[in-house]
Amino acid sequence: MSKKLVHTPEGVRDIYGDEKEKKTVVERLLQEKIRAYGYRDIQTPTFEYFDVFSKEVGTTPSKELYKFFDKEGNTLVLRPDFTPSIARCAAKYFMDENVPIRFCYQGNTFTNTSNLQGKLKEVTQMGAELIGDASVQADAEMIAMTIEALYHAGLTDFQISIGNLEYFKGICAEVGLNEELELELREYISGKNFFGAQELLESVQMEQKDRDALLKVSELFGTADILKEAKETASNKRSKDAVERLEKVYQVLCDYGVEKYVSFDLGMLSKYNYYTGIIFKGYTYGVGDAIVKGGRYDNLLSQFGKDAPAIGFMIVVDDLLSAMSRQGVIISGMEQCEKLYYTEITFKEQLNAAKRMRTEGKHVELVPEGK
Amino acid sequence: MSKKLVHTPEGVRDIYGDEKEKKTVVERLLQEKIRAYGYRDIQTPTFEYFDVFSKEVGTTPSKELYKFFDKEGNTLVLRPDFTPSIARCAAKYFMDENVPIRFCYQGNTFTNTSNLQGKLKEVTQMGAELIGDASVQADAEMIAMTIEALYHAGLTDFQISIGNLEYFKGICAEVGLNEELELELREYISGKNFFGAQELLESVQMEQKDRDALLKVSELFGTADILKEAKETASNKRSKDAVERLEKVYQVLCDYGVEKYVSFDLGMLSKYNYYTGIIFKGYTYGVGDAIVKGGRYDNLLSQFGKDAPAIGFMIVVDDLLSAMSRQGVIISGMEQCEKLYYTEITFKEQLNAAKRMRTEGKHVELVPEGK
Repeated sequence: MSKKLVHTPEGVRDIYGDEKEKKTVVERLLQEKIRAYGYRDIQTPTFEYFDVFSKEVGTTPSKELYKFFDKEGNTLVLRPDFTPSIARCAAKYFMDENVPIRFCYQGNTFTNTSNLQGKLKEVTQMGAELIGDASVQADAEMIAMTIEALYHAGLTDFQISIGNLEYFKGICAEVGLNEELELELREYISGKNFFGAQELLESVQMEQKDRDALLKVSELFGTADILKEAKETASNKRSKDAVERLEKVYQVLCDYGVEKYVSFDLGMLSKYNYYTGIIFKGYTYGVGDAIVKGGRYDNLLSQFGKDAPAIGFMIVVDDLLSAMSRQGVIISGMEQCEKLYYTEITFKEQLNAAKRMRTEGKHVELVPEGK
Repeated sequence: MSKKLVHTPEGVRDIYGDEKEKKTVVERLLQEKIRAYGYRDIQTPTFEYFDVFSKEVGTTPSKELYKFFDKEGNTLVLRPDFTPSIARCAAKYFMDENVPIRFCYQGNTFTNTSNLQGKLKEVTQMGAELIGDASVQADAEMIAMTIEALYHAGLTDFQISIGNLEYFKGICAEVGLNEELELELREYISGKNFFGAQELLESVQMEQKDRDALLKVSELFGTADILKEAKETASNKRSKDAVERLEKVYQVLCDYGVEKYVSFDLGMLSKYNYYTGIIFKGYTYGVGDAIVKGGRYDNLLSQFGKDAPAIGFMIVVDDLLSAMSRQGVIISGMEQCEKLYYTEITFKEQLNAAKRMRTEGKHVELVPEGK
């Protein structure tokens, strides 16, 4: 037997016993809340044509996709995230539909990162997409639902940080930053690398007030109070509108009663290029990365031939579980299993006992005596 | 936009709306029964090292595997079935465990068949494996549980056909058939191709009584009554023992009270080489292929370094759903979704109504009026 044979490939793993049981419970709890909001399950294929995740769509970089060929020589890709697939479905099956469409999903996603990064290459994501609704209420629903789902699953200590890409874009347009520079600056700011951003901007000719306005973006995070400051800082309409949108969303989040889980961060700038407008991330302690990522992607569906605004989010279930485990969160609803021992002679009697107990909803194992 | 962009690759598909809802309900019902028997969830990676599904393991032929490479150049394979992965896990995590281990799983499997066969290349399988229990009771538990799970899911018109590979092997050994001929004959008999089997055997030198005994195997199917005939036909101990095992299993199935769903077929010979002894398949009308496949694989775990008997089964959930749909089976427990319409002015009031209804377990969508 080769030693390799019992091992899983680097970056993927087996989940069993109590750990898997907890995952199942948490998935069910998250799903209960999402479905209560009228979202309906959709299942897309584990692999798609390469084009669905192409550069134009603005998802994971090609070198991080698992690619292979079908028998006809087409390039197939293991999905790195669900959003492009769901956008494809909305375009395919609901092309002429004008009412809002609500989808939710659960499944595994794959990114072919280098082993050196030490990241999981297969993770379970659960998420929802609201297509065809551009309203403030739609933005707030997504965020409120995320909060309620996490809370329902047993997490209590978390924050949803909300940004709006339009704010940064408005300032870049006002200053007249070229695209290349904008992208570079975006990297620094979203990485919270203030000094990198400063150095970059000092290497470029521009008025000091413009430089200050751009750098200021990375400092605009905190409670809802920072929205006022953000509005005062920005002198262009696009950025001001972006803040006003956030103010309105905040108002609706107060109607939901979830405002204590919310903060704002105008320097939050996603790496997925398909996002437009509002974006948000969920953080808790015990894991380094965000456990929730979401946002508006009003242009993505047109890539698949349907013009419709949309907003969505996804929870990285495996990361949520790691965080809950490190925080010592007790997961309720775990099923106990009882064992009934039998011999050849007592088998029928024990089988009948097991049947009765199973009817009552108990989990019962029949085990030969002596085992 | 390329037309290809909205399409899924050949052989895989999107499932949404009522169809997906039904699938979720049926999966939950199947799982409830399996878990009541003390089986615990396990999740293995979607892809594994090629060796886990190699020829020695005796699973899907290499040309029907989806293969690709990781960044280190190792060959990875999308799992074509779960059993080898679960056997790997049992060997890895429970090497020194002597008590019976019960695993259940649910997930998608992949076979890279030719488009001409018109088969789905990604299907959802749900199944269970009982490791470390060689008893008649273990065989019967697997079969009874399969029956109860299908019935609980809403299927009423089905049959589990049970065979025992040892019966055929015993006759082949008695007759002294060489391996090549045995494999060829196995193909004909498992394909219920009596004339093919006859022609093959007539092309070979052997006594007529041996030829008759071999051909007779393909006729030995029906109710439990055929077991007696099977025992009389066979003159070697191995085959007689095989029938006795089936008789004992039948007795326990009667204890379970599921005998009316059971029939026997000694000509059932699986294409998976890892099976030893008892095998079974579940059939219903509305789909061509078996919706359940299972059996004993007492030698598979030793491929991964652990000596332990095992038995398992899997339900092809997508095929079960097709059958139920064609049979007009009503799937209970589907959730209705209500819509509440709002304007800017009525939003807060409608939101509060939605909150109340969601607390009561209802599914409620909030929709802007006019949409």
